[in-house]
Amino acid sequence: MKRTEIDTPALLIDLDIMEANIQRLQEFLDEHGIGNRPHIKTHKIPAIAHKQLAAGAIGITCQKLGEAEVMADAGIQDILLTYNILGMAKLERLLRLNRRIRLLVTVDNSPVARGLAQAAQAAGQTLDVLVELGSHLERTGVPTVAGLVALAQEVDQLPGLRLRGLMTYPSAPEMAPTIQEALQAMQAAGLSTEIVSGGGTPVFRHAPQIPGLTEHRAGTYVYNDRMMVEAGAATWDDCALTVLTTVVSRSTPERAILDGGSKTFSSDNGLPMGRILEYPEAVIYKMNEEHAYVDVSRCQPGPAIGERVRVIPNHACGATNMHDQAYALRGDEVEAIWTIQARGKLR
Amino acid sequence: MKRTEIDTPALLIDLDIMEANIQRLQEFLDEHGIGNRPHIKTHKIPAIAHKQLAAGAIGITCQKLGEAEVMADAGIQDILLTYNILGMAKLERLLRLNRRIRLLVTVDNSPVARGLAQAAQAAGQTLDVLVELGSHLERTGVPTVAGLVALAQEVDQLPGLRLRGLMTYPSAPEMAPTIQEALQAMQAAGLSTEIVSGGGTPVFRHAPQIPGLTEHRAGTYVYNDRMMVEAGAATWDDCALTVLTTVVSRSTPERAILDGGSKTFSSDNGLPMGRILEYPEAVIYKMNEEHAYVDVSRCQPGPAIGERVRVIPNHACGATNMHDQAYALRGDEVEAIWTIQARGKLR
Repeated sequence: MKRTEIDTPALLIDLDIMEANIQRLQEFLDEHGIGNRPHIKTHKIPAIAHKQLAAGAIGITCQKLGEAEVMADAGIQDILLTYNILGMAKLERLLRLNRRIRLLVTVDNSPVARGLAQAAQAAGQTLDVLVELGSHLERTGVPTVAGLVALAQEVDQLPGLRLRGLMTYPSAPEMAPTIQEALQAMQAAGLSTEIVSGGGTPVFRHAPQIPGLTEHRAGTYVYNDRMMVEAGAATWDDCALTVLTTVVSRSTPERAILDGGSKTFSSDNGLPMGRILEYPEAVIYKMNEEHAYVDVSRCQPGPAIGERVRVIPNHACGATNMHDQAYALRGDEVEAIWTIQARGKLR
Repeated sequence: MKRTEIDTPALLIDLDIMEANIQRLQEFLDEHGIGNRPHIKTHKIPAIAHKQLAAGAIGITCQKLGEAEVMADAGIQDILLTYNILGMAKLERLLRLNRRIRLLVTVDNSPVARGLAQAAQAAGQTLDVLVELGSHLERTGVPTVAGLVALAQEVDQLPGLRLRGLMTYPSAPEMAPTIQEALQAMQAAGLSTEIVSGGGTPVFRHAPQIPGLTEHRAGTYVYNDRMMVEAGAATWDDCALTVLTTVVSRSTPERAILDGGSKTFSSDNGLPMGRILEYPEAVIYKMNEEHAYVDVSRCQPGPAIGERVRVIPNHACGATNMHDQAYALRGDEVEAIWTIQARGKLR
């Protein structure tokens, strides 16, 4: 099957670009002796996770338990779940997963730690745990080193849990002093810092500056997108993911309408949306659910009705999540059609 | 099963509110002798489409061919597909659908009309067609009355097509003069205006002011959302759709983190996101893929870790599209778990 035979809209992966992205990050982290634990939220496809592992990754990262289950079902044996897990339904699933694979889970608060401990103990199991240090992102994570050490001590003492170290996101260079301080304080308290896990695609080249870093979690690097290009973390030529669309309407000389909108690209990162490979001067200035509005005034006459164009999305992780399958292309030839198996695994 | 037993995140539908929404719009259009042709893009669930038909709808509207196929498979017999259909793969599917149900399709340009005609003729079929008039939305649709009449004449003359009238979106009151002019010009040219189809939830109460309107397409009215409340088209009490989430982190007294983000709510309509039913003073000020950041400084102490809260999303159609299933609740009792069957039907 050739690219020209794929109906639109469709998610396309350029395998040559993707494999180069996988290789580049792996080589960089290898060179600096840092483990690579890619975040699969970007692709949600087991076959790609296996490519990352084959290139040298030490394991993978998942954001949701359901994603981890999909990856474990696909034979992946080492997973870090960077999420606070709460409630009996998820705890039971977590412990079933813990019996099957090498699982690491993170906590940023005492109620979550106690819930994990209680469930693990009741099941006669031990869960490996990293404590999460807050960052300048101000999302999850303990915001002070003193608080982190207190939580690590609690984890260390709770039956059913084994403290393995700490994680943070993103591990930007400005986090280095805080991470250093946290490591010293945990070590002074006799707590394990065997694993120090950082993350983020835009910051991966700074990983060697992070004190004690043993592994790095990057997600978007596998595809890259407009956000990564604008952050200086990639070039347009490094973008492996595009959305193939058809021009369905040309009501005016300035306007073209594509057969995909916010339900095809996601609305992540607002407007303008993406970049059209074939018409880089064109601008997607608005979207509805199933329509993208393109200003083609700078590329006259612009695409004709029925013409097919590829769009690099703003946010690869958001675009992936809109599709049930992806077409893996070697040049213009479809090498595989992959089901996006972890899409929709919100729990 | 009770609401308290549903794991998070989960999409909840309050059936009493939804049924009242369905009834209210139906009664209004009935009163004014206008057909109700609800747009199913909002819910994508056949069981809800059947409720809309049982209340008196004359048929349904779909945006994508794949949605129409799902609805036809569920026994729905009358579908308007408001989209320009292009390419052999879709044309073959369209004609298969046309054999099974009463199908109406729209066109806004000559290449699409000729493609439909050629495929219909080759299959020995006739396709019923509405021409699309452009609106102030400046999306699809012929932007001038003269252009619309020319396209209608072409459709009227093409073998394999049967012109049935015109459609536009949205049919806001300011469109009335143009619609009037289009109707007169088409009638003067001896062209059918048997069907005049308008659409949009915020404008449905203006439907009686639209000249010659025979049917109205509203989508979001079935659930409503923050956008509809802000547009004055609904109240918070009319919002039937919520996303059930759990507070997973409380790193500071001001901040709570929910276990859903842009992959649970969609990023549609930006920030702030939605409204938390249990904490209306709280503000979701940021989202990542699987996290919502909530400012709880105005509702001290705010929700505890593990507490579950329901969020009315900004855009019901975007939120629905993120979930594989929805829990239909009668009060706190789960009456049904519906698969969102037309989710992901992008083609």
